[in-house]
Amino acid sequence: MTNAKTYTLGTLAELLQVELIGDPDCVIDGLATLQQASPGKLGFLSNPSYAKQLSNCKASAVIIAPRHIEACKLNKLVSETPYVIYARASQLFDNSPSASNTVHSTAVVNEYAELADDVSIGPNAVIEADVVIGPGSNIGPGCIVGEGSLIGEGCQLYSNVTIYHRVKLGNRVVIHSGAVIGADGFGFAFDGEKSVKIAQLGSVQIADDVEVGAGTTIDRGALDDTVIEQGVKIDNQVQIGHNCIIGAHSVICGCVAIAGSVVIGKYCVLGGASGVVGHIRIADRVKVSAMSLVSQAIDTAGTYSSGTGIMETARWKKNIVRFRQLDDISKRLRSMENTKKKTPE
Amino acid sequence: MTNAKTYTLGTLAELLQVELIGDPDCVIDGLATLQQASPGKLGFLSNPSYAKQLSNCKASAVIIAPRHIEACKLNKLVSETPYVIYARASQLFDNSPSASNTVHSTAVVNEYAELADDVSIGPNAVIEADVVIGPGSNIGPGCIVGEGSLIGEGCQLYSNVTIYHRVKLGNRVVIHSGAVIGADGFGFAFDGEKSVKIAQLGSVQIADDVEVGAGTTIDRGALDDTVIEQGVKIDNQVQIGHNCIIGAHSVICGCVAIAGSVVIGKYCVLGGASGVVGHIRIADRVKVSAMSLVSQAIDTAGTYSSGTGIMETARWKKNIVRFRQLDDISKRLRSMENTKKKTPE
Amino acid sequence: MTNAKTYTLGTLAELLQVELIGDPDCVIDGLATLQQASPGKLGFLSNPSYAKQLSNCKASAVIIAPRHIEACKLNKLVSETPYVIYARASQLFDNSPSASNTVHSTAVVNEYAELADDVSIGPNAVIEADVVIGPGSNIGPGCIVGEGSLIGEGCQLYSNVTIYHRVKLGNRVVIHSGAVIGADGFGFAFDGEKSVKIAQLGSVQIADDVEVGAGTTIDRGALDDTVIEQGVKIDNQVQIGHNCIIGAHSVICGCVAIAGSVVIGKYCVLGGASGVVGHIRIADRVKVSAMSLVSQAIDTAGTYSSGTGIMETARWKKNIVRFRQLDDISKRLRSMENTKKKTPE
Repeated sequence: MTNAKTYTLGTLAELLQVELIGDPDCVIDGLATLQQASPGKLGFLSNPSYAKQLSNCKASAVIIAPRHIEACKLNKLVSETPYVIYARASQLFDNSPSASNTVHSTAVVNEYAELADDVSIGPNAVIEADVVIGPGSNIGPGCIVGEGSLIGEGCQLYSNVTIYHRVKLGNRVVIHSGAVIGADGFGFAFDGEKSVKIAQLGSVQIADDVEVGAGTTIDRGALDDTVIEQGVKIDNQVQIGHNCIIGAHSVICGCVAIAGSVVIGKYCVLGGASGVVGHIRIADRVKVSAMSLVSQAIDTAGTYSSGTGIMETARWKKNIVRFRQLDDISKRLRSMENTKKKTPE
Repeated sequence: MTNAKTYTLGTLAELLQVELIGDPDCVIDGLATLQQASPGKLGFLSNPSYAKQLSNCKASAVIIAPRHIEACKLNKLVSETPYVIYARASQLFDNSPSASNTVHSTAVVNEYAELADDVSIGPNAVIEADVVIGPGSNIGPGCIVGEGSLIGEGCQLYSNVTIYHRVKLGNRVVIHSGAVIGADGFGFAFDGEKSVKIAQLGSVQIADDVEVGAGTTIDRGALDDTVIEQGVKIDNQVQIGHNCIIGAHSVICGCVAIAGSVVIGKYCVLGGASGVVGHIRIADRVKVSAMSLVSQAIDTAGTYSSGTGIMETARWKKNIVRFRQLDDISKRLRSMENTKKKTPE
Repeated sequence: MTNAKTYTLGTLAELLQVELIGDPDCVIDGLATLQQASPGKLGFLSNPSYAKQLSNCKASAVIIAPRHIEACKLNKLVSETPYVIYARASQLFDNSPSASNTVHSTAVVNEYAELADDVSIGPNAVIEADVVIGPGSNIGPGCIVGEGSLIGEGCQLYSNVTIYHRVKLGNRVVIHSGAVIGADGFGFAFDGEKSVKIAQLGSVQIADDVEVGAGTTIDRGALDDTVIEQGVKIDNQVQIGHNCIIGAHSVICGCVAIAGSVVIGKYCVLGGASGVVGHIRIADRVKVSAMSLVSQAIDTAGTYSSGTGIMETARWKKNIVRFRQLDDISKRLRSMENTKKKTPE
């Protein structure tokens, strides 16, 4: 990890607004796990099961909860929420390439597009007519922003993002490379011989502080818009069908497939590679485990799963044969039970 | 929904070739669902379970089947297939940005490429040597069309589509952003120590009226071509392996994974996130439900599924433990049944 | 299949270092399966179940194992590993467009990038500051290579590949279109109200001879790097989360989803659309079947599966109802068995 940024512990405590126990002049040049930390690094203890690593830890300081202070002889940044403080600290050490705040000479910006003064547009990006881009936004190389789309303040589009026409992004939206926002929803009417295209007349609205992963696709609506509410975090290669509404602060892990017209509540978590069938509603604070299929509406908060556990294929093959017979097995058991009841013992 | 296009009902009836009951001069400025329609909008009743929404519907007119005429006091466009008429009407109201019919100055078109007069090539698109593009086709910004590929008439490639070399597209093919057509099939021979690359010498043929979704990948064949037949509709993030043949008018929903050398019949529907193992054949008119794995050939039309339903994780965990024991459970039940038969009651 | 390259059988035998039985002057102009071969083609017999096709095969020659020599009247290239020889032969007949060995005039190469003399950079590619690209590497049209990334010798990046900043590729790495290497890992700390971004300070290291499929995403690490070891082959639309380590020579089939911090051994095979939950370790030489979820660590080589087989939906529906009752069914069976033991027969 190349990392040019350094801070004294005193400065870090101030920036992160946490208590410092130890040397304020100690210089920190990066973050590390307890196990891999070397001198100069700031570690963190979030999961208590790693507390035993404190004794051998070579970090110069540790972000730690009050209850672990006694166990730690190193410099300490103390917080009830060490993982959140680690997250904030990581942003201080972020050394991603900085924005140019200029429009590259090879970018193609339509004369009817409206760009705030400090917007960055990378090489070979294309900004179509009637696009509006707010202050501080950074459009990476090779991005295409379609006609009439609106991009708020402080947004970050990494390279090769595609935004179709009339899409709306709020402020501080982050979109990773290869993502496609506003492609046609998958709508066809079958006329008995062939599929007749249903023009997708809606668009996509993405609210403030949403992050969209690499290769993720969010389709435009058929009539109304597809809506991603505030603070939603979407990982890579997620597919969100037309007219879905994803509730605020929900987290959609990688490779999730959500069919059309699904309404997902707030603070939900869809595990990796899970799926949701179309036209259903999921309540607030529902968690779905990895690779589960939500095959019907869920109206109560909780954790849900489908599928089977992993096992050796030889054993699995025997069991799936029985799975095919499961209804029969159940009926035979019931029959035995009934016989038994009638039989005096 | 921004929508500049308007039609009188009389004009719509003519264009859609359906019967009008009501005011031919009524002006329609868009489409809407029955529930959300406001004056000026054209609604449609396709699913009979929404018929009760007719009474409060604020639309100016409704596309409706003859059997629902009595229940509807609004202006009516009457058809036995309201959903198909809605699809056709949606195309009339489509206000996607129109093609330029020119080659943008920043496009890189090889001198040995052959473009029909009215072809549109967007900014920063790249057209390699020996490419042929037919009349009326529209190649979006940032698309790459590889050496020797052929694109028919009236095709639409949205932004950032990648077409490898020697791929053939028929007429009216639509490809959404981020799709990749003709990358190498996944072929390696393991020599005991490492994987030896099998050069993928075939290509991809896509027939007329095929639509390909955003982020979808269709690999080139190892020796022969991968073939997508006429009228097939493919949603986003679908993977189609080398040497597959997808039968005419089949529908492949989002995130489907199809391994190599699969032959799929005509008029099939593969549900979202379903999968198909390699080297098998699926008959015509097979439907596969969401997230099912087609683990063996299917030779009869019908609907097929795999997986388990969704349930609360606590309950699911108990059941998957039993799934691991299922073969044992089945044998124990058989054993009890056998004992019982031998035991006089 | 267009194919301009031809070889005599004698030359092929020499290049492939195998024994020739037959006419060294016979001219071969391509490869084909036994069934579809026409004169001029070189076939191959790898799977013994196709041996019966030898009798009607129209190929001019066949790659064949010693034990099948007697059954074959055609010219023969003899090897104990016909499939590996076929793979090598396919490379001889590869007629993909060749590299230009020049930097296209529309490519945007930063003045602080360092390119070997014979590097090819395609139209509209963007090479950022401090990038180093080794001899013989070929960067396709529309590719973006981010600041400080290193690309070794003889690499091939097809069109529209995105490489983020400070990514390291070894030698002879092949990356297909639409792939994204080095996007942010999916890391957030939930502060009770919202997700706080964890800056992803690591990067991605890809070793020699790795191939990455179209649309695949490999995320950069949170603190340390994500690592793809030597000779790994990754198919299309695979997602590899931050801080994974994929062991040398493993094969990851299409649409696999691997969560963060997974360590996969050497010579593993993950079947298509399978998944792996986060923070687990998989031993060397583990095979996972298609669409299985690896829900826990696997410490022994072998083949593993999850899920259920495919069946008609009507039957499946009955069985999944019983799956929900499986724990109950198991307990009832145990109860019956216990009763029986106590009952004198």
